[in-house]
Amino acid sequence: MNEITRPKDVYYKRSDEQMARHLPGETNFSLRQKLALTCRMLANDGHGSGLAGQITARGENPDTFWTQSFGLGMDEISAKNLLLVDNDLNVLEGNGMPNPANRFHIWIYRARPEVKCIIHTHPFWCSALSMLEEPLVVSHMDTTALFDDCSFLPSWPGVPFGDEEGRVISEALGDKRAVLLTHHGQLVACGAVEEAAVLALTIEKAAKLHMAARAVGQIQPIEPHLGREAHALKMKPKSYLAHFAYHVRQTLKTDADCIN
Amino acid sequence: MNEITRPKDVYYKRSDEQMARHLPGETNFSLRQKLALTCRMLANDGHGSGLAGQITARGENPDTFWTQSFGLGMDEISAKNLLLVDNDLNVLEGNGMPNPANRFHIWIYRARPEVKCIIHTHPFWCSALSMLEEPLVVSHMDTTALFDDCSFLPSWPGVPFGDEEGRVISEALGDKRAVLLTHHGQLVACGAVEEAAVLALTIEKAAKLHMAARAVGQIQPIEPHLGREAHALKMKPKSYLAHFAYHVRQTLKTDADCIN
Amino acid sequence: MNEITRPKDVYYKRSDEQMARHLPGETNFSLRQKLALTCRMLANDGHGSGLAGQITARGENPDTFWTQSFGLGMDEISAKNLLLVDNDLNVLEGNGMPNPANRFHIWIYRARPEVKCIIHTHPFWCSALSMLEEPLVVSHMDTTALFDDCSFLPSWPGVPFGDEEGRVISEALGDKRAVLLTHHGQLVACGAVEEAAVLALTIEKAAKLHMAARAVGQIQPIEPHLGREAHALKMKPKSYLAHFAYHVRQTLKTDADCIN
Amino acid sequence: MNEITRPKDVYYKRSDEQMARHLPGETNFSLRQKLALTCRMLANDGHGSGLAGQITARGENPDTFWTQSFGLGMDEISAKNLLLVDNDLNVLEGNGMPNPANRFHIWIYRARPEVKCIIHTHPFWCSALSMLEEPLVVSHMDTTALFDDCSFLPSWPGVPFGDEEGRVISEALGDKRAVLLTHHGQLVACGAVEEAAVLALTIEKAAKLHMAARAVGQIQPIEPHLGREAHALKMKPKSYLAHFAYHVRQTLKTDADCIN
Repeated sequence: MNEITRPKDVYYKRSDEQMARHLPGETNFSLRQKLALTCRMLANDGHGSGLAGQITARGENPDTFWTQSFGLGMDEISAKNLLLVDNDLNVLEGNGMPNPANRFHIWIYRARPEVKCIIHTHPFWCSALSMLEEPLVVSHMDTTALFDDCSFLPSWPGVPFGDEEGRVISEALGDKRAVLLTHHGQLVACGAVEEAAVLALTIEKAAKLHMAARAVGQIQPIEPHLGREAHALKMKPKSYLAHFAYHVRQTLKTDADCIN
Repeated sequence: MNEITRPKDVYYKRSDEQMARHLPGETNFSLRQKLALTCRMLANDGHGSGLAGQITARGENPDTFWTQSFGLGMDEISAKNLLLVDNDLNVLEGNGMPNPANRFHIWIYRARPEVKCIIHTHPFWCSALSMLEEPLVVSHMDTTALFDDCSFLPSWPGVPFGDEEGRVISEALGDKRAVLLTHHGQLVACGAVEEAAVLALTIEKAAKLHMAARAVGQIQPIEPHLGREAHALKMKPKSYLAHFAYHVRQTLKTDADCIN
Repeated sequence: MNEITRPKDVYYKRSDEQMARHLPGETNFSLRQKLALTCRMLANDGHGSGLAGQITARGENPDTFWTQSFGLGMDEISAKNLLLVDNDLNVLEGNGMPNPANRFHIWIYRARPEVKCIIHTHPFWCSALSMLEEPLVVSHMDTTALFDDCSFLPSWPGVPFGDEEGRVISEALGDKRAVLLTHHGQLVACGAVEEAAVLALTIEKAAKLHMAARAVGQIQPIEPHLGREAHALKMKPKSYLAHFAYHVRQTLKTDADCIN
Repeated sequence: MNEITRPKDVYYKRSDEQMARHLPGETNFSLRQKLALTCRMLANDGHGSGLAGQITARGENPDTFWTQSFGLGMDEISAKNLLLVDNDLNVLEGNGMPNPANRFHIWIYRARPEVKCIIHTHPFWCSALSMLEEPLVVSHMDTTALFDDCSFLPSWPGVPFGDEEGRVISEALGDKRAVLLTHHGQLVACGAVEEAAVLALTIEKAAKLHMAARAVGQIQPIEPHLGREAHALKMKPKSYLAHFAYHVRQTLKTDADCIN
């Protein structure tokens, strides 16, 4: 077998072309269906934490947001039981109340016009890491979607029902896609539901890897320029859409009722 | 989107009003059904430990208590196989024998008239923590129901069949809702079955978080006044009743037979 | 509620009387059925390790032993696919070959006439502990069945197919019920299948607790006289028979085919 | 019972004879079916990592390779959705695109003519270990298939789409059957699909044991000559074929659709 060698950018280009042709793009699911599917895939991945955690997405009209009805677990969310709220959390559509902690979502949407979806959860490994007041170290190829894209809130401002917590969390996030909230959990803020869903799954995996490695010793860093190169690849829409499509297929096997 | 800011107590008040209107209150389940549901939700959460662990609740008449029949696992408890015993553990109703370790429950009921339900289990992470003779550190928002409300018994008095163990455990609990029992397990003592169930789930989660974080390093404390504020919120009946209702819905999906 | 206090031995006596009356004794299962049920409960508890691990029990005739057919996993064992072998591992009944490692079982049966059943497995936590060459510390009430009853083989003699490994393992076990085998796994040798089954479940739980606690720090010891008192209680036939009966009920829910 | 003692090689010989007679040999599954079964058993063992990980096997014609269609999870692979590609990753048969990272497989096949199957995955424990830049320590009898047979790539070359990564990974593997890839995952390269499948399961188990033990302290080494003796036994075709057959039986219980 003869050796074939080409510059790497040839392969990147070929990969882009093939992915454009062969991988799934956006699905036909409605916004509400995507949110419900995301809740179920998060629940199946251990993001549920009793009644804690919120997902929101900008509604079709300005200053409106879809979110869950408070009192339901992530595993109980369906397209039909979501609420539409305004920017003061008044319910515009649906039955029930929003989680009062949704207020800090509003602060983020105001600061980051490009953000379309926010997922805030308290999954186990993010929670355990957060008790150490130690930033997340991204040091594995599979989690490079967070490389140089996850900030850190080093103190806990208390029950996040108020505007002050909104200001603090929004500032901690800054211009990143993710933030680890000390003594609290994780938050991702993205331009699409699909991207947020994949990033939320990624951050919990990254925290679990972090905690498993740190129980043994020091995590070794990856080369920054290689981390950034991998990050750019993971953040291509074709990449996260293909991952989202995969997780949707998994979710529909067990939770098909959520899209009704 | 204009910035809205209000004092935090406005939001607390709004939250209370909304929760009163929208969240579930007490259920129509009988006391025995609540106990059986609690046993099943605990079993599903890893609280089973062979035949160890006991749940008790004050009966309708003074000095009577409902408890499991010894020899059954937590996952086998139903409303119809519970026993009613007196304050010397004689069986008043039902077939079988109570766990002889129920004696220390009696000591707690005697010392704490407001306590209506006690859950004592040996779940894995409480057990592992207890082997270190290290008190539980409450340092995550989700476990603040235990903030400043979990005491510590630093030595193991042996097989807890006697009155001496009752005295020791009851004194270690003091006026708290929870206690970590070294080389043994956890105990919660609350004013309602629902509250005890939620707190028992919480303490095992807190112990698991503690152990995961401590395997890496030191757990950082949260601000005491913020911990107390969150504790007060978690201990509102509307809060723990909503959580209990959620866990009941989960439990009924797999263990509906327990309420017969 | 008046305080009742009695000496502890009154309660122990009461407990013995009640357990004699209320708890299950020996079951009607045949020896082969008990072995098959034990294999399945061990498999469900994580004792399977590919094709490794052997259970043996003395047969009805002298110098005969029941064991699994090599090549099947613990989860595939049924009463009808067990083999009867002689003390040189020649097959007397059934189809297939015994695991060659059964030879060290024979060495133990020869040294310990009272032993009726041996369970040797490589469950995960015993295996991980064994890589540290660190003896098991029994420091939780639930695992006191092993208190002062688990010895330690500090070096690995290699693939255990030979007589030399039989001599080494048999000597390491000594007069105890259990031994942790470095770089290898666990072995329990008991007077009854039921006792061996419960002890095998216990040792893996003890190893898991040990490893979870040791990842954080030092395991604190329990008082030796209290450990021995608890050990005596756990080793009463009524106690281990009740535990075995519980695990059989669990096993029959998923693996009822094994008793055919 | 009289003591029987014989030299160990007598027992090895007897074991070989019995295994030849009683244990399963090669199955009747087609190459594609074996690959699909392997994907499913790996997925069920935690080797899936979103869309990452590739399995390849040499095709019937020179310079052809079977692999998965990129965009599917390991749990979605069936005999009928595999692709046949050439040594430049052009698709010869089937629909879709190969994972661009398959390029480094080609580099290995070129360097190692005896290799017939490569499995590269990012299972959790290999991934966590790889973040420490610490080589795998093989110190348990069950994982001796890797003893002195697992090399180490101490740095991460970046997204493995290019020829340079192929050269680096191929050189790191050298003449071993396995390699741990820092910040990345594991790779096994074997003379048969069955051998590769069993070795891939083994390396993740070895990494999990490594991480559990290292969270406590130092892993103690086994005697090199005993490790090599055990390795030789594990690498006998009758041994890995029997293990593969066992895992196939498990896999067919849940994933029988994969062979259609």
